[in-house]
Amino acid sequence: MTGVSRRQLFGLTGAGVALAGAGVAAGIGVDRLDPGSGAPATASTVDFHGTHQAGIVTPTQPNLHFAALDVTTKDVGELRALLRTWTAAARRMTAGQEVVTGGAAEAPPGDTGEALDLPAADLTLTIGFGPSLFDRRFGLAAKRPPQLVDLPLFPKDKLDPARSGGDLCIQACANDPQVAVHAVRNLVRLGFGVTEVRWSQLGFGRSSSTSRTQQTPRNLFGFKDGTNNVKAEDTGVLHDQVWAQPDDGQAWMADGSYLVARRIRMHIETWDRETLSGQEQIVGRSKGTGAPLGQTGEFDQVDLDVGGAGGVPLIADDAHIRLASHQTLAGARILRRGYNFVDGSDGVGHLEAGLFFLAFNRDTRTQYIPMQQALSAKDAMMEYVQHTGSAHFAVPPGLTPASNWGDGLFG
Amino acid sequence: MTGVSRRQLFGLTGAGVALAGAGVAAGIGVDRLDPGSGAPATASTVDFHGTHQAGIVTPTQPNLHFAALDVTTKDVGELRALLRTWTAAARRMTAGQEVVTGGAAEAPPGDTGEALDLPAADLTLTIGFGPSLFDRRFGLAAKRPPQLVDLPLFPKDKLDPARSGGDLCIQACANDPQVAVHAVRNLVRLGFGVTEVRWSQLGFGRSSSTSRTQQTPRNLFGFKDGTNNVKAEDTGVLHDQVWAQPDDGQAWMADGSYLVARRIRMHIETWDRETLSGQEQIVGRSKGTGAPLGQTGEFDQVDLDVGGAGGVPLIADDAHIRLASHQTLAGARILRRGYNFVDGSDGVGHLEAGLFFLAFNRDTRTQYIPMQQALSAKDAMMEYVQHTGSAHFAVPPGLTPASNWGDGLFG
Repeated sequence: MTGVSRRQLFGLTGAGVALAGAGVAAGIGVDRLDPGSGAPATASTVDFHGTHQAGIVTPTQPNLHFAALDVTTKDVGELRALLRTWTAAARRMTAGQEVVTGGAAEAPPGDTGEALDLPAADLTLTIGFGPSLFDRRFGLAAKRPPQLVDLPLFPKDKLDPARSGGDLCIQACANDPQVAVHAVRNLVRLGFGVTEVRWSQLGFGRSSSTSRTQQTPRNLFGFKDGTNNVKAEDTGVLHDQVWAQPDDGQAWMADGSYLVARRIRMHIETWDRETLSGQEQIVGRSKGTGAPLGQTGEFDQVDLDVGGAGGVPLIADDAHIRLASHQTLAGARILRRGYNFVDGSDGVGHLEAGLFFLAFNRDTRTQYIPMQQALSAKDAMMEYVQHTGSAHFAVPPGLTPASNWGDGLFG
Repeated sequence: MTGVSRRQLFGLTGAGVALAGAGVAAGIGVDRLDPGSGAPATASTVDFHGTHQAGIVTPTQPNLHFAALDVTTKDVGELRALLRTWTAAARRMTAGQEVVTGGAAEAPPGDTGEALDLPAADLTLTIGFGPSLFDRRFGLAAKRPPQLVDLPLFPKDKLDPARSGGDLCIQACANDPQVAVHAVRNLVRLGFGVTEVRWSQLGFGRSSSTSRTQQTPRNLFGFKDGTNNVKAEDTGVLHDQVWAQPDDGQAWMADGSYLVARRIRMHIETWDRETLSGQEQIVGRSKGTGAPLGQTGEFDQVDLDVGGAGGVPLIADDAHIRLASHQTLAGARILRRGYNFVDGSDGVGHLEAGLFFLAFNRDTRTQYIPMQQALSAKDAMMEYVQHTGSAHFAVPPGLTPASNWGDGLFG
């Protein structure tokens, strides 16, 4: 049924025709949902409901569309209503259904249609709230989690305000880029008059695994990335380092997490002229196997002390894996689910390529921030990368079939 | 074998280690090819060799990376050598192999590595020569095909020079975006000092079928696109309307074609507020089924005269399919293989989305140009789209295992 699950729309079924013929307007929102019309869930769907939002420990799907939005209304009621509308639309789209069923010929379609023939494609939709949402506009200041700090400017940051910040974010991950784009585009469409797009980013070739069932992918430096990532199976680490707990400061965030998004431009042309040995020194791993230097297998426990000639550690003081290691960072870890990107060219003869870094942690103050401070200050890789975008979001907990995004925030 | 075919590099095999140990530098070009090391072709490869270049009538793969390059050298010998180097690299990459085998630790790697664990993924690499290549720099003016005109400025064009033109183009299509990106990136890398990237474009969700084996995809207006496209099975039409013939003016172009690339921004937010009926009037087809207005099936022969109330044709005078029809255009047809794109946001609250239009024809003067002149002047859809980039390329014929890109041009 997967391939036909969205076909309720535009007269593709008798029911759709009948609705259209009755002149029922369907274009404005998703209040005309017909819960009985849902296609059965298939193997290619990820459950939208759960303790945590999907799209965090879900095995990373190969395609991303991420959007940050600004809230343009001053009416908090409109914002809350939109979050409910988004929830209903997300519930349907992640099940492989069109945003609404049916619709009249004389109304704008309630679904834009470009995913009509496509399956759910493991779509997940994950939303977050940025620090700016907790300013004076909506009376939410007292609800701001202490973990949701304004990120500091790190050494060598070269941030573009047009690629940074945002009141809200939508992370859409799927096995088909068109399904991810369709989902973001329809949520944006439903937000017309309430929100607008601040920035958006497409990504491919997931640059981390979030499950031991997945092969480690490679980033655009050609190295395996995320070998030692926190994974779905690491439930103890997830409890300690990823999921917000009830007594972390804002109970409404319990079972949520904090998302750091960083657009990292990679100067691949410079990197490509570095020797293989030099690249491996910078990363601290073998390019072919992904094994830590001095070891043989990708998943060998990293030994930061293993010595080379003269007893000097093979993994240099400024090697990326040393500085990013929880052994160096007082045990701090993060769950990454970044993506590679190429955004055209840079206007001076190069590809505009890089890594769109996404990481989830329980407390950005004690996990991501000290890690990035160490990397920005000392990482040998900094010569080849530049952080050009930055954002931080509180990602609320998961939903039941009866709850809506924003219930905890506004409750 | 597909998944391991690229693993010759970076010491993943004994042979690679031995080469590295011998200190053989492999980073500069691809002259160290070892033809005996090739992995066997698999079901997921498209033959690089043939009468025509692959990537034209090849069933359109779902992912695109397209790059236009400027030639920066003044030395025509360097350009010709690069085309040979590119041929060897493309021959290997389209077979699922790394650009070179082996390589020394103290040299830059001969392959950037990010596709090392990935199969060939039906990669095709197709190159073309822009009008500017035939200027005075390289002595090629007498080789310029008469069909390779400078495209006129069409009504309502709003072209960005930074997204237009180019001396050369590379079209990479694959089933995995990382494979397409890897291929373009490595050809660009090999061109260092000879060429540089002028612009590049990623695309997804192929917006046309080029074979009757494929389902018609949908563009970001939500409509099926390319129902009446010229397809691989239409050999007579291909002969007449796509493939350059020996007596077309430049014999070296025989079995080649002419490629028009147009970046078409789609104002999807405005489109999404149009009624379903209005959208269908503009296109001239039903949104759900793709059937021409007044007919029932997607592939029903388009009847431009079928009348509605009062005998007025259901397909309006300014409907897209009327103006683009070969019935209106003195029989002229083109083969399209475009892609959808979302390039972030436009800075004023919208997604920067659209269609990257790619079309192949035998004579752009009598096929694409009159078609676009009719559309730009009269198409009701022009209210919702804007052409922001434009380029034109002569795509030379296919290769044998012994020939190289540029043989005809320089021969």
